[in-house]
Amino acid sequence: MDLHGAFHVYDTTLRDGAQQEGLNLTVADKLAIARQLDGLGVGYIEGGWPGANPKDTEFFRRAAQELDLEHARLAAFGATRRAGVRAADDPLIAALRESGAPVVTLVAKSHDRHVELALRTTLEENLAMIRDTVSHLRAEGQEVFLDAEHFFNGYRDNRDYALEVLRTAYDAGASVIALCDTNGGMLPSWVADTVHDVLESTGVRVGIHAHNDTGCAIANSLAAVDAGATHVQGCINGYGERTGNADLVAVVANLELKLDRRVLPQGMLGEATRIAHAVAEVTNVPPASRQPYVGGSAFAHKAGLHASAIKVDPNLYQHMDPAGVGNDMRLLVSDMAGRASIELKGRELGFDLSGDRELVTRITDRVKVLESRGFTFEAADASFELLLIEEVEGQRPAYFDVESWRVITETVPHGDAVSEATVKLRADGVRYVVTGEGNGPVNALDQALRAAIEQAYPEVAKFELIDYKVRILDQGHGTDAITRVLIETSDGETSWLTVGVGTNVIEASWGALVDGVTFGLRRHDQR
Amino acid sequence: MDLHGAFHVYDTTLRDGAQQEGLNLTVADKLAIARQLDGLGVGYIEGGWPGANPKDTEFFRRAAQELDLEHARLAAFGATRRAGVRAADDPLIAALRESGAPVVTLVAKSHDRHVELALRTTLEENLAMIRDTVSHLRAEGQEVFLDAEHFFNGYRDNRDYALEVLRTAYDAGASVIALCDTNGGMLPSWVADTVHDVLESTGVRVGIHAHNDTGCAIANSLAAVDAGATHVQGCINGYGERTGNADLVAVVANLELKLDRRVLPQGMLGEATRIAHAVAEVTNVPPASRQPYVGGSAFAHKAGLHASAIKVDPNLYQHMDPAGVGNDMRLLVSDMAGRASIELKGRELGFDLSGDRELVTRITDRVKVLESRGFTFEAADASFELLLIEEVEGQRPAYFDVESWRVITETVPHGDAVSEATVKLRADGVRYVVTGEGNGPVNALDQALRAAIEQAYPEVAKFELIDYKVRILDQGHGTDAITRVLIETSDGETSWLTVGVGTNVIEASWGALVDGVTFGLRRHDQR
Repeated sequence: MDLHGAFHVYDTTLRDGAQQEGLNLTVADKLAIARQLDGLGVGYIEGGWPGANPKDTEFFRRAAQELDLEHARLAAFGATRRAGVRAADDPLIAALRESGAPVVTLVAKSHDRHVELALRTTLEENLAMIRDTVSHLRAEGQEVFLDAEHFFNGYRDNRDYALEVLRTAYDAGASVIALCDTNGGMLPSWVADTVHDVLESTGVRVGIHAHNDTGCAIANSLAAVDAGATHVQGCINGYGERTGNADLVAVVANLELKLDRRVLPQGMLGEATRIAHAVAEVTNVPPASRQPYVGGSAFAHKAGLHASAIKVDPNLYQHMDPAGVGNDMRLLVSDMAGRASIELKGRELGFDLSGDRELVTRITDRVKVLESRGFTFEAADASFELLLIEEVEGQRPAYFDVESWRVITETVPHGDAVSEATVKLRADGVRYVVTGEGNGPVNALDQALRAAIEQAYPEVAKFELIDYKVRILDQGHGTDAITRVLIETSDGETSWLTVGVGTNVIEASWGALVDGVTFGLRRHDQR
Repeated sequence: MDLHGAFHVYDTTLRDGAQQEGLNLTVADKLAIARQLDGLGVGYIEGGWPGANPKDTEFFRRAAQELDLEHARLAAFGATRRAGVRAADDPLIAALRESGAPVVTLVAKSHDRHVELALRTTLEENLAMIRDTVSHLRAEGQEVFLDAEHFFNGYRDNRDYALEVLRTAYDAGASVIALCDTNGGMLPSWVADTVHDVLESTGVRVGIHAHNDTGCAIANSLAAVDAGATHVQGCINGYGERTGNADLVAVVANLELKLDRRVLPQGMLGEATRIAHAVAEVTNVPPASRQPYVGGSAFAHKAGLHASAIKVDPNLYQHMDPAGVGNDMRLLVSDMAGRASIELKGRELGFDLSGDRELVTRITDRVKVLESRGFTFEAADASFELLLIEEVEGQRPAYFDVESWRVITETVPHGDAVSEATVKLRADGVRYVVTGEGNGPVNALDQALRAAIEQAYPEVAKFELIDYKVRILDQGHGTDAITRVLIETSDGETSWLTVGVGTNVIEASWGALVDGVTFGLRRHDQR
């Protein structure tokens, strides 16, 4: 498939996505993300604005040496030449030429008010800037795309001028004009009408660049494609300024799976979930569990009532096969849990329970009792797996035996409060008494517990508590209520969730900590 | 404006939104959210499924006594009668009748395969179940809406039957038929075409219930309304199973601000940001900063290139005035608090700050600093009022002076862990050293603190901590993160919320406890 011809999937994560509040990418991050995007099979990767900031200049320098892209072409982003200078003499244009990128995406004003108020030049000079810059770069051998900034607002205020901008760029040699909803206020029907008119009035090749301010970035992109756009810009995980850019994976998945348009190389979409999560690891922005297609909850079902029907035909309850985007169906064990969902969940974890009715009944009953006491196994797969093992194998995996623990939190003069925990336990025949300090009681207990067990099982040194959630349940009043703690533990490669419950938040945390370490040790054993 | 006539804004946060993974609402939570939704001016609040689970039955019982709704009507959700029973004899139908809700929303199968595989009855009996249940409830004096489950898939597989379901319900007296995209796989153009056909073929009044699996829930809802639907269902913050339901605030904001349709009472939309965040405090689901309209980043601009142009005309860079949804434009990273909102909040609490620019600036700056450290004053009115008093009067109300505190939690043989706290403080000139016990560290601290202060201020005996919420703010660092604690204290007549922040959860809790007691004493003083 020619990714650079009939239809462009154009990723702008490294440029427009990086405008997101709190998102800060190093050059190494950008290179790592570019490799992931190439692995998704996008046609173009916009790498940044060389010349405008040293990081992006450096990115293109290193990309030329280090990136070996299989599918994607790199695009350098930049603005048209300054007013009153020749394109060949503008140092920012030189930086685009020298970036080594085969494609330059030039941003140009297409809204008359922006030309006057932000660019502070005349409408005529703006057209000349576009004409000169496009033809100069084309003559120097680069392909040029044009981002028509604030196009939809410009089109409303001064349609003739906005269209003139498009014609000028196209006549000068730009191969695509991306219509940008820069402020993000458009709705699908408006986008469709505008794209129709642009195509009829100008005959340029049209792209779409949508932001999600109305919550319609994905739908706006689809509306533009439906109206004839053949180039779609977006960001992985919908990163971007304000409410974000169009989520590129969702746009592509809708095009391929719903509208039957092939826009990525065969089989690449099945990598989407893995890649979206891998990029989130690089950006350090926690993945949104409710994200369409690739979110952790995107194919999660509270089993209960429908479990038996899901067994008959999962497609009755999901809009597509999650494997199409590399995601999985997950059954949440909840207090509506019936036998069918326990069996399904067991199968998911590698236990075939279908042959043993009595065992399934025992597990189902135990889950019901625990959930009525405040436990939840919906998220805490690892605690649920420990429970399964206990019922299947007759006993719980026991690597250590806790004698007692104690934690003290107290004020110190002129400083933050400190916590100190002492844990006494036996592991592998030896008694350990270990004290740990922390900036909170659970932190201190975690330190002490792992420091003790580590002496018997050195692999525990790799375990790290990476997330801690507390929920107060409502069975009592205020602090006199049931507390549920969810803990995520990582061994550097994978992570797992455990749950603890109790009226005492520290005791609930302790339960989840112990499950977390036990599960990690068991997993390590089985490798 | 008649919220129950020409156009329905129908919220299903308490029922379908609560299906979200990890979201677990108590009856008290549901009552609190219902009050917030009423404050937004929605026409209908779906409260849950009375009879199907004890919590929802309890919600309707308490709602009848405790909820004084100004705008909204309560709807009870439930299924059509079981196959082969009279509606009048079905105990689940009785629970709907007895819920006291003026409206019942009945879910019915409209996809032939679901009737056969999930309901395991005949297509004819399904129609009879719909007909009987609707007419029975109508005869008993309730208004009935029908949720046509899996409608869009049913319509594709067996259009005649799907339409027959709608006609049957409508002829039996249902006043609205909500077409449900239960699996969430639809795209706007398909929704538009289907709604058009339904309206032409059946003449029923149509509503839309969209899920976000393709990232198009908002656009699908708008497409349905554009095609003639006059009832739109959704959830605040887009809560819901899998990828969530249509985000009700974004749908309503698009309808009012973009499409010029009035669907909420005048002025209510300006409360949207505050309410969306207040509901997030109750659900304990961190608000998404990139959420359209109400997100913390929705109107945040990295001030740089455009700063001067933004000053000339902010509307060049934003798609609407953020005040329209009660949000603020932000040029700098960090704060949520603008001067205007501080003034408004002050007025809400009885302080007229409008005359003193310097004071407002000082308060605004302090709020910004505290919010950047993790505090939130959105819900914690009492902590904010203490801060206001401190700035207005020059000092914080000081009833007692804490010297130190310490809390120990430890295991006991054959029993639950116990906590013991010691607090040393001076009140009214006397030094108190008091020890309190509790079933958790915060409970023990609360007991010790109040036992000490009570000796100087006996009114403290009436104070009771009635709610305690913990949120970990900085995910990815496990227990080594910032913790925010919200505490609700009651004096038997009223209650108030305070906030505390720290890396140590106990210290954060202590801050909120101290604010809670201080605020209560101040309020008592002023009576």
